[in-house]
Order: sequence, then C-alpha cells, then structure tokens
Amino acid sequence: MKIHFAIAAALLTACFASSALAQEPEGLPISAQLYTARNAGTLDQQLAVIEQAGIKYVETFRFFGMPEVPVEEMKASLAKHHLKLSGTHIAFSELADNLPHIVEYNKALGNTRLIVPALSAGMVPNDKASWQAMGRVFQIIATTLKPQGMKIGFHNHTVEMEMFDGKTGFEWFAESAPDVILTVDLAWASQGGQDPAALLKRLKGHVWNVHVKDSAPMGMNKDQRGLANLGEGVLKWDQILPAARETGVQWFTLEHDVPKPDALTVLKSANAYLIPRLQKVLGL
Amino acid sequence: MKIHFAIAAALLTACFASSALAQEPEGLPISAQLYTARNAGTLDQQLAVIEQAGIKYVETFRFFGMPEVPVEEMKASLAKHHLKLSGTHIAFSELADNLPHIVEYNKALGNTRLIVPALSAGMVPNDKASWQAMGRVFQIIATTLKPQGMKIGFHNHTVEMEMFDGKTGFEWFAESAPDVILTVDLAWASQGGQDPAALLKRLKGHVWNVHVKDSAPMGMNKDQRGLANLGEGVLKWDQILPAARETGVQWFTLEHDVPKPDALTVLKSANAYLIPRLQKVLGL
Repeated sequence: MKIHFAIAAALLTACFASSALAQEPEGLPISAQLYTARNAGTLDQQLAVIEQAGIKYVETFRFFGMPEVPVEEMKASLAKHHLKLSGTHIAFSELADNLPHIVEYNKALGNTRLIVPALSAGMVPNDKASWQAMGRVFQIIATTLKPQGMKIGFHNHTVEMEMFDGKTGFEWFAESAPDVILTVDLAWASQGGQDPAALLKRLKGHVWNVHVKDSAPMGMNKDQRGLANLGEGVLKWDQILPAARETGVQWFTLEHDVPKPDALTVLKSANAYLIPRLQKVLGL
Repeated sequence: MKIHFAIAAALLTACFASSALAQEPEGLPISAQLYTARNAGTLDQQLAVIEQAGIKYVETFRFFGMPEVPVEEMKASLAKHHLKLSGTHIAFSELADNLPHIVEYNKALGNTRLIVPALSAGMVPNDKASWQAMGRVFQIIATTLKPQGMKIGFHNHTVEMEMFDGKTGFEWFAESAPDVILTVDLAWASQGGQDPAALLKRLKGHVWNVHVKDSAPMGMNKDQRGLANLGEGVLKWDQILPAARETGVQWFTLEHDVPKPDALTVLKSANAYLIPRLQKVLGL
C-alpha cells in the first residue's frame, strides 16, 4: 500500500513536471479562494487571512464590474503575505473582449490559469447542443491562449449539473473544449444532484482543481447557502480525494462562500482537515 | 413596373407592421452609424452632424472599455437633434455579463436592437463548426432577450467573409442563430471577397439592416481604409439595393469609417445619393 501511494506520488510529480505551463506547488497543492475572505477588509487584510490560516497559495477573483487591482499593488501584497497564485477567477467578458491585457496582467503575477467563475444568467445553455457550443467557444479562446502559455478554465455552480441526454451540461461542455481546464466545485456539484467522486471520474483528465467545500444536509445551514465547514457536511471525502488523485486533479482549493464565524476560523479548520487526508491520498 | 414596386412597398410596410418589436421608421428607413462622426467633438456635436446631414435616425456605438453615456444625457441630446435610434453597437462583453442593465438602458431610449460590432481577435472562429457554435451562443442570448422585446445582432468585417466548406463564416453563424439579426456591412463584405448582393440573397431573412458604405478599387484610398464616398466606389448599388429589398432588409445605415474632408460632407453626399435610389427600389 505504501509503495502504491509512493508510485502515485511519483506519477503526480511527473505530471506536474511535464506541464511547463502549470504553476508548481511547493509542498501540498492547497490553495484558498480569496472569495472566502472577501469581507475581511482591504485586499491586504484579506490576503493576511489566507496567510494566517497557514495556506501558501491563493486563487483571486474579479467578477464583472469589479475594478482591477493595480498589478504592482497585487504583487506587493502577495509577496508581503508569502502567497503565490494558483489561479484566478475572471469574468468571461474580460476574456472575450480584453484578453491581451488579462494575459499581460496575469503573466506579471506568474499566473497562467484564467478561470471563468460562472456564466451570467442570460447566457447559460439549456440543452446539450448549446453546452457543446459554449465549450467550443471557450476552446477558441483556449487556442488563442495556448502559444502564450496560458489557459482558460470554467468553474461550476449547480446549473451546470443539469442532465441532458444522460450527461451534465458540464460534461458536454468539456467534451467540446479539450484545452479548457475545469474546476469542479464539489459542494455545488453535490447540491446540483451529482455524486462528486463519480463526476470527477466521468471528467477524468479535464479537471485541474477542485473547490474543496462541504455541503450541509438538505435544508440545513441556510445562512451559509447550505454549505458546511469542511468535514462537517455530507460530502464523502474518503471517496472524493482518492477520485481526485486518480483523475488528474492537481490543486485543492479551499472555499466557503459564507464562513461562520469568520474566514480565518473556517479556513484554518478546513486546512487542518484537508492536510492529513491529502498527504495520505498523495502518499506523502 | 410601377404596380410591382407598389406591391413590394405594401409588403415591406406589412413586414414592418407585423414586427411589434421593431422600431418603425417615419419616412425612409435611413440611419447613420454615429462612428462616422466620432471625431466631430462632443456627443452633442456628433449628433448635430447627423441632424445637419438631414438624417432622422442614428445607430450609436459603445465598444469595450468606452464609458456609457448617462441615459438622460443621451435621451436629451437625441431629442435636441430630432434623432431616434435605429439600433446600437455594443461590445459583446456587455451582452455576456451586463445584459439586464443593457436592456434597461436601451428600453429607456426606445431601442430594441443590440448589435455586436465585432468579435475580439482572441475569439474569432476559424472553422465551420466554431462559427456554428458562436451562432448558437448568440442564440442563447437571443432567447433570453425575446420575451423582453429585444434582439441581439452581429455585424461583419472582412474576417466573417472567409469561406469554410462552401459558405462564409457569417452564413454558418446565421444558420445556428435563427433569432439573431444580422447587419451586412456591404463594403467589408466586398473587401472580404464576397459579392454583396449575392451574399444578401444567401442570407435572406437574416439581415435587418445594411451598412451602406462604398469601397474604393483595390489598393486605392488607403487613407480611408480603402473606402470611398457612396457612389464613387466599386459597389453595384443598382444590384445591391434591389437585393436588399427582396431579402427583407429593413434599414439602410450610412457609414464611412474615415470620412474626408469631414463627416458632415460625406454623410450629406451619401444621403443625397441613397434617397432617390431607395425611393425607386421601395416604389415610393
């Protein structure tokens, strides 16, 4: 068993090494989505929360209409808190109409992963062919980005979990988008009616990271959007983490949309829950 | 012959009347794209140019990164110059991520037509299936807009004229986007290698307006992006205008990207050229 994990770890390392474009984690591939700490004050104070939770990597976000943090300010604040980027969430519109700037900005920060957090309501596909079409449109942008060493990605909520002709919209999207990297948000996948571990297996090779987030039993924790602290919800981490390892997931990004009592407490506890389980799964 | 035109005019009138969503022209369906007058000073001064050229309708534009004119200022300036909107050019990103606001803004101005002027370079399809996919993604937005009485459209440059499997990208796009309204920019269509009248016939039923713009002989008028004053270029208006009438084109929008010596001179002359020819074709 020990040897088995060691081989898996070696494979995983090889996988990381083979991808010149990927940002390599030093230590465990754990990051936090900054959205968790968005109510903690200034950007600097938010990043301080991630650092204090003992996390080394952060996934930033800029939704439509949010101003861009000047690149030098972002760089300085990340350095101050000893954080590196694992990726960023960026509005689809910025990738559609502002791509050269977004590439330049992220290159300056050492980030290669540009993840669309969600499609706005007016353009969510609602049949198989439309999900395939959306995948192909993302693939056009992926093709533009490829020679620049950058990738476009897509992150799910519950709407992408709706089934059409036997598969989720997310899967039809992925099949049309071979160079687009996916984030599976495990809690939203579960709340959308899917078994997260089974979904990861069906999406094998497409998923670069997971949002490690727990879901409360149906109808509970309404003040937390139905989410729960990691390990206190319904998600089966003893199945999900091995499935993630087996299917090529490279990063594990902690998130809680409505952390109670605060982001620091929730991230610290989530990190403490994840570390030993991830070490075991990775054979470290 | 006279009777023939009268029937055509009656049919055209019926066509206008049947579309509750369309903005109906009073008099000839001629408008000007405001881009022509963009260097004429303030918005108010630009609209004054359109008015002074004797044109009653204007197609406004807001590309990515341009600030939005406050709705009350736009309304007041349009009224001051006795202008109504025939449509607007609006960045794709605004329709992707800011649709409810764009709908509200345009409803306040009495405009139902939201036209994407161009796809940014990073997301231009370059095969048949990708053009079809892009059409289907626009169709998703068209479906969202339909119950609100609004339409999304798409305007060509030369890149949409590239052929794949015997048809232009623009045609593959249109086939996947039954509720998306097209603008054929006649000069760019010509410079892209297509016969504008033949293209209109192939796109029958899809095109709501044309950009009435002439193209200089190959290699000429380089300081005008190869364009020419209306009637002084290579486009065959005696074929194009009847083709437009026969294929359901409802509006004729004057445009010159680099008007010499100025927008007023060019628009006045273009309007004078178009009016009698359009009257004849419409049987008026």
